[in-house]
Amino acid sequence: MTEKLSIIKIGGDLVNNNIALTSYLEALAQIDTPKILVHGGGKQATALSKQLGITSPMIDGRRVTTKEALAVVTMVYGGLINKNIVAQLQKQGCNALGLTGADANTVVATKRAPVPVDFGYVGDVKEVNTSFIHRLLKENILPVFCAITHDQKGQLLNTNADTMAAEIAMALTTYYKVSLLYCFGKRGVLYDIADESTLIDQINTDAYKKLKQQGKIHQGMLPKIDNGFRALTNGVDTVRIGNLTMLTQSGYKCTQLFL
Amino acid sequence: MTEKLSIIKIGGDLVNNNIALTSYLEALAQIDTPKILVHGGGKQATALSKQLGITSPMIDGRRVTTKEALAVVTMVYGGLINKNIVAQLQKQGCNALGLTGADANTVVATKRAPVPVDFGYVGDVKEVNTSFIHRLLKENILPVFCAITHDQKGQLLNTNADTMAAEIAMALTTYYKVSLLYCFGKRGVLYDIADESTLIDQINTDAYKKLKQQGKIHQGMLPKIDNGFRALTNGVDTVRIGNLTMLTQSGYKCTQLFL
Repeated sequence: MTEKLSIIKIGGDLVNNNIALTSYLEALAQIDTPKILVHGGGKQATALSKQLGITSPMIDGRRVTTKEALAVVTMVYGGLINKNIVAQLQKQGCNALGLTGADANTVVATKRAPVPVDFGYVGDVKEVNTSFIHRLLKENILPVFCAITHDQKGQLLNTNADTMAAEIAMALTTYYKVSLLYCFGKRGVLYDIADESTLIDQINTDAYKKLKQQGKIHQGMLPKIDNGFRALTNGVDTVRIGNLTMLTQSGYKCTQLFL
Repeated sequence: MTEKLSIIKIGGDLVNNNIALTSYLEALAQIDTPKILVHGGGKQATALSKQLGITSPMIDGRRVTTKEALAVVTMVYGGLINKNIVAQLQKQGCNALGLTGADANTVVATKRAPVPVDFGYVGDVKEVNTSFIHRLLKENILPVFCAITHDQKGQLLNTNADTMAAEIAMALTTYYKVSLLYCFGKRGVLYDIADESTLIDQINTDAYKKLKQQGKIHQGMLPKIDNGFRALTNGVDTVRIGNLTMLTQSGYKCTQLFL
């Protein structure tokens, strides 16, 4: 496996800011190796839910995906955000194609068991069908995934976007030397989230254990780091967490994970 | 051109009724020749607009697509309806892929000139890029289009679904012997829309002129018939208007257009 592939996940803070998103998509269009984009968009979904008067219960700090909430994320992630990103990339000369996991049966998930906690229409990835994705890449088409999957029984499911990116990255190690890049507004994992100079530029599994025990890692970083280590354990070559400069400037310091 | 292809447009009355939609998708899954689905969904978009307090001005009985209305149709057509249809088809064993015209640059449109009437973000189809669509069909993938296009400059545009279906049908005559089927809740074009026995089973251009002059054709049928005749003039083999039985029962009487 010598051909490189980048799986780039962009977070809600980039998706929600038109100027940042445009810069990001311009940077992305400059990368000429094969790439796959995975996007979030939680804040826009929350805003629409609020406008529609839909309140989703929270359990253990995590939101339950009710039937109504699933309709909202299908509209916002699968429609509004995904199609606007695709149109912007087309403008940049990138031949993008928007996908949910249901499209061409690319990402199949299982509805999470309702015991011990029923999180509603949430899907855990069971299988990534890589052959169609691989063919798109071979034809210079950029797949743009939103984090919606399906169960092959007609049900769409809400899936964590960080996890979706990691699963796609792991599956594509069959064909490529894969880099997984978690891209958001900050330079990387920071000791102090208000101070970019407190970047932790390398984290290995031992250091991660200690940092977590000391409560030194911001809650929002945990899914990225956990998924990142899982990806490294399952054949992904490189995992980095940082801002969009890491896409365009080689040697730019962000956070890199090591086993 | 001997290989057959059906372009099947389903109207809002089917899309808005879950039971009808399921029967329809089951019928569709049984057709084993290549096919493309194009769907509307205006009623659901109108309902969401109402919930969000978005009112679009009407000019000459036609709705203006404001920036807010475009966001709504992108969510409803491109997200909610399209992805649910795709998931339902996957359940039926049909490998469906949801598309807007921006995806893989399949349908390029031009924003309609604001003079004499500014209808907002409305797109007139300029080009259908058939090679990607043809490749999907060759791989037994069923393209499911919603009627959203793009201008290649980053702007999504709202396009009439009947027109979108006709444009795709005409473009694919390069590869196939194409049938265009406008599928909705009624048996076809009726003299009296309340009475299915008043079916007009054949309409040619001369008869159409007379029927229109006499005011005997319901307003809602005009875009289908106009687009249908345009399709026949541009190489499409067959144009039929009717309910879903025409998909499964050969020789079933609906309305067929002839030049």
